[in-house]
Amino acid sequence: MFSKEIYNQRRSVLGKALYSGLLLFLGNDEMGMNCKDNTYHFRQDSSFLYYFGLDQPNLAAVMDLDEGKSIIFGDEMSVEYIVWMGAQPTIAEQAAQVGVLETQPYDELEAYLQKAASRPIHYLPPYRANHTIKLHQLLGKPLNVVSNHASVELIQAIVQQRSVKSAEEIAEMEKAVNVTGQMHIQAMRQAKAGMKEAELAGLVEGMAVASGGNLAYPVIMTVNGQTLHNHYHGNTLQSGQMVLGDYGAETGLHYAGDITRTFPVDKTFTSRQKDIYNLVLKAEVDCIEALKPDMLYRDMHLKSAKIILDGLKTLGLTKGNMDDALEAGAYGLFFPHGLGHQIGLDVHDMENLGENYVGYRNGIERSKLFGLKSLRLAKELKTGYVLTVEPGIYFIPELIDQWKVEGRFKEFINYDAVEKYKDFSGIRIEDNILITETGYRILGEPIPKTVKEVEALRAEV
Amino acid sequence: MFSKEIYNQRRSVLGKALYSGLLLFLGNDEMGMNCKDNTYHFRQDSSFLYYFGLDQPNLAAVMDLDEGKSIIFGDEMSVEYIVWMGAQPTIAEQAAQVGVLETQPYDELEAYLQKAASRPIHYLPPYRANHTIKLHQLLGKPLNVVSNHASVELIQAIVQQRSVKSAEEIAEMEKAVNVTGQMHIQAMRQAKAGMKEAELAGLVEGMAVASGGNLAYPVIMTVNGQTLHNHYHGNTLQSGQMVLGDYGAETGLHYAGDITRTFPVDKTFTSRQKDIYNLVLKAEVDCIEALKPDMLYRDMHLKSAKIILDGLKTLGLTKGNMDDALEAGAYGLFFPHGLGHQIGLDVHDMENLGENYVGYRNGIERSKLFGLKSLRLAKELKTGYVLTVEPGIYFIPELIDQWKVEGRFKEFINYDAVEKYKDFSGIRIEDNILITETGYRILGEPIPKTVKEVEALRAEV
Repeated sequence: MFSKEIYNQRRSVLGKALYSGLLLFLGNDEMGMNCKDNTYHFRQDSSFLYYFGLDQPNLAAVMDLDEGKSIIFGDEMSVEYIVWMGAQPTIAEQAAQVGVLETQPYDELEAYLQKAASRPIHYLPPYRANHTIKLHQLLGKPLNVVSNHASVELIQAIVQQRSVKSAEEIAEMEKAVNVTGQMHIQAMRQAKAGMKEAELAGLVEGMAVASGGNLAYPVIMTVNGQTLHNHYHGNTLQSGQMVLGDYGAETGLHYAGDITRTFPVDKTFTSRQKDIYNLVLKAEVDCIEALKPDMLYRDMHLKSAKIILDGLKTLGLTKGNMDDALEAGAYGLFFPHGLGHQIGLDVHDMENLGENYVGYRNGIERSKLFGLKSLRLAKELKTGYVLTVEPGIYFIPELIDQWKVEGRFKEFINYDAVEKYKDFSGIRIEDNILITETGYRILGEPIPKTVKEVEALRAEV
Repeated sequence: MFSKEIYNQRRSVLGKALYSGLLLFLGNDEMGMNCKDNTYHFRQDSSFLYYFGLDQPNLAAVMDLDEGKSIIFGDEMSVEYIVWMGAQPTIAEQAAQVGVLETQPYDELEAYLQKAASRPIHYLPPYRANHTIKLHQLLGKPLNVVSNHASVELIQAIVQQRSVKSAEEIAEMEKAVNVTGQMHIQAMRQAKAGMKEAELAGLVEGMAVASGGNLAYPVIMTVNGQTLHNHYHGNTLQSGQMVLGDYGAETGLHYAGDITRTFPVDKTFTSRQKDIYNLVLKAEVDCIEALKPDMLYRDMHLKSAKIILDGLKTLGLTKGNMDDALEAGAYGLFFPHGLGHQIGLDVHDMENLGENYVGYRNGIERSKLFGLKSLRLAKELKTGYVLTVEPGIYFIPELIDQWKVEGRFKEFINYDAVEKYKDFSGIRIEDNILITETGYRILGEPIPKTVKEVEALRAEV
C-alpha cells in the first residue's frame, strides 16, 4: 500500500467535497466460483482501495463527516483461521497503516448506521449481488431500490478525485504498462502457425501472475479480432491470419495496464493487412499526438473515425463525401466501438460508479448513433487523466450482411469491395496515455508498434 | 461437451430418482470483479454442466417430471451482441446438442414456475448471491429462507449420481491430472533460490490456461506450507526452505485435478526434511494401497493419523501411547485437516450442495474433534468414486504456542522437541485416486514423489 499520509489526504479531500453525513464503503468479499469455498482470486473494491488501502475481504469503512473520523469495521482472526490462512496484523494495526485510528467488529456496522439513520448515508452503487443484499439489510431498503439510492454526490466527488492521477499512481501505472509490454513482446516472439490461441493466452496470463500482480481483465488473444471481446481461445493459428492481443497486467497495488497489438502469424503482414494496419496506426498515432488538456475526447473519437473513413476511401471501401459519412456515423461498420476510456485502479476506471458519470457531463450527452454510442469517454480531458487510445478496423461478417441487406449508408460504403474483406478479421492498436499540462505522455517503455518493429520481432520466431 | 446420449441418460436417472415435480437448475451468470462488466472468467455451475452440458451464462433449465420433458430457458443474441461476443448457434440448436427439445426465452421461466406453483419445485442451494436474489424473485420466498428450502431429495439424488464417475468422466479426469503433473514437474525443474513464489505460481497458472482449460482452484505455491490455504506469493525462495505446491488444472470440460507436491529449494532435502517427508509419504502411500470399495474413508484418515503419530514418536516429537493419542485427537497439532475429499467437476466435488451430504450419512456423523472435524469425506467408498489422498505434517507456530500454553495433550506431545520445529513449515503430498471394483487406481501418469525422484528433478535446475 501507499503511505498513510496519502490515504489521509485522499479522505480529507473527499470529506471536504461532501461536507456532512456518513460515507459508507463496503469492501469486497470472497466470491465463490463453483462453490462458496472455491473462490475466484480476491479483488478488493477499487474505491475502498483508493481511500482505505486494505487489500483483504470482510471489511467495511465509514467516514463520519459530522464526527470528523473514519472507522474500519472488521473482525480479528481466530487461531483456527490462522491455521488455514496464515497470521496477519490485527485490524487496528492494519487500520493504523492507512491512518485510520478507530476500528470496530464488523457486526457493529449495522448499529452504527442505525444510530446515524437521521443523517444522510452516502454509498456507492453495488456491482456484486452480495453487496445489494448487504445494503438492503444494513439500510432497510428494498432490494430493487438499493442501486437507485446510491449517492450521486458521492459518485461525482469520487470521479472528480480519482480521475486525476497522482505521481505515485502514475509510477504504478507505468509498472503495469511495462509488464504488459513484456507480455506482448513475448507473445509476438513465440506465436507460430499450429499453436493454439490458448497457449499464447496462458503465456501472457502466467507472466502477469509471475510479476506479482494479476490480469487487469480477461485476455483477448484471437485470430478472430473482428469479435471485439472474444474470450474463446480454442483456435489454431494459421499462416495468413493475424493475432489480435488485448490484455493488461494489474500490479500488486491493483493499477491496470491495457494494451492491444495485432501481428501476423507469418513473419510479415500481407500487403492487404499492411494497408489496414497502417491506417489503424495512423488513427492511433495522430490522435495521441493531438492530445492535450481541455479538449473533448469525443472530438478525438471523431478525428480517428475520419482518418479511418478517408483511408478506407483510398482503398476503395468507402465512397462519397467523408465529412457527411462521419456525421452520419457510417464508420460504425468498421469501427463500432469507442476510441478509449479512463484507466487507473480499474481497466475501465470507475465505471462501476456509472459510465456516464465518468465519461460524460451535462451538455456532453451520450450519442444514440451505433458506434459513437459505445464511446466511454466523451468529455474534456484534464491534466492527470490517464486514458486509452485504441482505434480499430474490423470486418464483421454478420454486421456487413445486416447493413448491406438494409442498404444502410450505401451512399458511403462500397459493399461490393467490403464483401471481399469478410475473411479479414480485425486490427486494433492501443496505448495508455497520461494527459500532461503541455500535452501527453505515452506510459511505459515503447512496445513495438510500426509494421517494421512488429515484423522485426516476428523475424525472431 | 459429451454426446447428447450421455446427458439424456443422466437426466433420465435423475428423473427416476425424484419421480415427480419440477427440478429447477439455474445456470451461472457472469460475475463482476471490480465492475459489473469486468468479469471473472466464466464458470458454469457444475450440476448444470452435468445434466445440461451448456457452458455459457444466462441460461436456466427445468426438468418437468410430470410432463416428462426438459426445457432450456435462454435468449438469442442480437447482432449487436455478436459484434462484441461472436456468433453462436441458436439456443434451440445448442439445446438439441444435449438432447433438450424445448427452449423458451429466459423471461418465460418465471411464468412457467408460477403455473407449476402447486407442484413441488426442487432446487439446489445457491452459493452465489445473485442466485439467492433470483430464487427469491422467481419463487416468492424471503431471502433468508431461500437456502433452507433447497431440496434435500434433489441434493441426495445428485450426490448419489455424480459420486460415481463414468468412463468418459474418468478419462477427462486423467487429462486434468496429466496437465497438473506437468505443471508440478515444471515447477520442480525451474524453482531456485532468489525466485519469487509468484514466478512459480505464474508458471503453473499459465500452463493450466495454455492446456485449453484453467485452474481448478487458486494456486498454493508457498515456502510457508504450514499455512494450509496460503495464497500469498510475495516471498523469495531461500536455500534451506521447501516449496509446497498445491494446484490443479481444470480441463475444457471442467473436470479437476488436485495434486500436491513439496520439494526443497536446494537440490536435496535436509536430513530433518527428509525424515518428515518420508513419514508423510508413508502415510500417503500406505493409505492409497489400502483403498477399496465399502471401506469407511474415516478409517483411512485415522490410519494416516496413526502412521504420523507413530513416526513422530520415533523422531521424539510425540510420546506415550499412540493409540490413546489417536483416540484423543492429539495428531491435530501436526495434521489439522482431513485426509481427502471427492473430486470431479468440482475440486471439492459437489460441496456446494452441502459438505455433509457428500461426505457423511446417517450413522456417520461429523466429529467435533479439532482436525478430524475438517475431514470432508468419512463415509463408505464405492466403485467409481474419485478422491484425493493428501496427508500432511505441519508445524504451525501459533497453534503450537496456543496448545502448549493450554497444556493440551502434553502427555502425548513433546513440546520441547516440537519448539525446535517451529521454523520447519509443512509438507503435504497428494494424489487423485479412482476406487475400482478390486481396489484403486492412481489417476494419470506418475508424478515424481519419492525423495529420490524429487531430488532427481531438482538436480536438473
